[in-house]
Amino acid sequence: MVRMPAVLPYYSIGVDLGGTNLRIAAVGPAGELCEKIALETEVKEGRERVVEDMCAAIADLRLRMGAAPLAGIGIGVPGVIHLSTGMVLNSPNLPGWTDFPVRDEIERRLATRVILENDANAAALGEKYLGAGKNVSGLCILTLGTGIGGGLVLDGRIWHGEDGMGGELGHMTIDPNGQLCACGNLGCIEAYSSASAIVRMANAAIRVGRSPGLTAAAEEVGELTAEVVYIKARQGDRVACEIFEMAGRSLGVAVGNLINIFNLPLYVIGGGVARAWDVFAPALIAEVEKRSVVYRSRRPRIERSALDADAGLLGAAWLPQLDRARLQTAPARQSL
Amino acid sequence: MVRMPAVLPYYSIGVDLGGTNLRIAAVGPAGELCEKIALETEVKEGRERVVEDMCAAIADLRLRMGAAPLAGIGIGVPGVIHLSTGMVLNSPNLPGWTDFPVRDEIERRLATRVILENDANAAALGEKYLGAGKNVSGLCILTLGTGIGGGLVLDGRIWHGEDGMGGELGHMTIDPNGQLCACGNLGCIEAYSSASAIVRMANAAIRVGRSPGLTAAAEEVGELTAEVVYIKARQGDRVACEIFEMAGRSLGVAVGNLINIFNLPLYVIGGGVARAWDVFAPALIAEVEKRSVVYRSRRPRIERSALDADAGLLGAAWLPQLDRARLQTAPARQSL
Repeated sequence: MVRMPAVLPYYSIGVDLGGTNLRIAAVGPAGELCEKIALETEVKEGRERVVEDMCAAIADLRLRMGAAPLAGIGIGVPGVIHLSTGMVLNSPNLPGWTDFPVRDEIERRLATRVILENDANAAALGEKYLGAGKNVSGLCILTLGTGIGGGLVLDGRIWHGEDGMGGELGHMTIDPNGQLCACGNLGCIEAYSSASAIVRMANAAIRVGRSPGLTAAAEEVGELTAEVVYIKARQGDRVACEIFEMAGRSLGVAVGNLINIFNLPLYVIGGGVARAWDVFAPALIAEVEKRSVVYRSRRPRIERSALDADAGLLGAAWLPQLDRARLQTAPARQSL
Repeated sequence: MVRMPAVLPYYSIGVDLGGTNLRIAAVGPAGELCEKIALETEVKEGRERVVEDMCAAIADLRLRMGAAPLAGIGIGVPGVIHLSTGMVLNSPNLPGWTDFPVRDEIERRLATRVILENDANAAALGEKYLGAGKNVSGLCILTLGTGIGGGLVLDGRIWHGEDGMGGELGHMTIDPNGQLCACGNLGCIEAYSSASAIVRMANAAIRVGRSPGLTAAAEEVGELTAEVVYIKARQGDRVACEIFEMAGRSLGVAVGNLINIFNLPLYVIGGGVARAWDVFAPALIAEVEKRSVVYRSRRPRIERSALDADAGLLGAAWLPQLDRARLQTAPARQSL
């Protein structure tokens, strides 16, 4: 009797290449996490060092996965990706990466197919296929970190727009005469609901002597973080609560606009700040209710990320699996 | 020798069913206007009268088109369309139409396939296939009329969203503490850049005695319209110019947001107010430049409607032609 070789299910590797953390995971065909490596991104040591670390970790994971066939590697990058060339067009967190053929170089070193994707887009994909959005056709995610990223999955595919810059949701103007944003505009949502915005508001309250609680916390930890402000809010500190209410209300204006524009079934809030969901979500929902005529009529879901910090990592790992399923992540162009 | 019958090209009929005007056109296979009928919409006479007028005009057009085969009838309606049932869900301009199977009733009376679509969506489709967007894959339109409508064509198809309410762009909040809008929200773009908003701003200036020019014009015409304010602006009236600058700047905030969100190649301004393009466009473009990081990088086109008042009519007529080309106007749902 001839024994048939066992058909091993394909696995894929995802990379979450952040400005601070470099995380690599192997993910099975049902989206299950098999192996994970967490490193620091040695940005200061230069691009070559980061690429070397990444390739070494990927090689390590492949060894650990043994004989299982690899579907490919997906890499989530904090910047705008030029899809056809696989280059990073604009990435404040990865200086020196913009004139470098990232995808081709890693493909060459690893002799495997590599798919590059913006990190928030990868998070959107992770939530769609492995997280909060499993049973919907599309969703919108806002990732609240140092800045605010955005990702759109429409009819199962990432919306890239014409040049890969679609889904730049963090720079939506929600108050035309509001706070100055890092992008130069006044009143971007990023200037109200990002971790940096929360820290800025807390420091402003400390400066004018409005918050003894935050002042004491800042003295204790040396430098305020959004997490510290969250802990104070949880302890009932009035100013800390107000800061998260402001972040939530501002987010509500943006989410209300997105609901009117897209009429999607699900809006996801991800990124580190989403862990403060309990202190900002009530203000967020109340504001959406007030603002959005489509929300009042259709009541779409507004939820925090189900995959939390792993959304981008798992989404990146899912890119080659989607590709195997003959799905284009780029929108199909129709010629008529 | 057997003579083959001449193959006649299919034509289609479009209806622009407005709260004031009812226009019906026959359009050839290249989008050329063949015949046109313009009536008043006798809304006050009741729904039955309007349906009768529409069906009579369509029958008239069919007679005029002779033996050419009809591909179908597309009707643009100012309201939210429930796609699967062909009913109008919400239409302030057509009272009494919401519990009525519009599509099925007209199909029954005319024994022909009928496609219903929201009027701004029809205008977006008209611009995409027969107007400013012929050579792009997608576009976004804002139609500035009594209110502000919105339409999105993504990858050649109208974006309907989950329940047909996608593209509700007129109620984007652009100033969270701004003008009260008819929808109950504060600071919708409709409260700044619609014809009603322009008239409201002009009347406010007259009330406080700020504008002798507009006061004289209002006395002359009896009731101010956006067109009268435009004529005064063209004559150099300072307050009239300021009103259109305000409308343009506000529109710029909204268009800047849409550019960041979609990264489309083309944004079209349509509707009656678009005829005042020369007096509001400079402020619109300047504001987009200031606001949108994606605009500064990609410089997408921002243009006034090429089809002007006919965008919705021609787009409605194009619905059956698109359908014949086996294109779905509803987004394809992917199950994975």
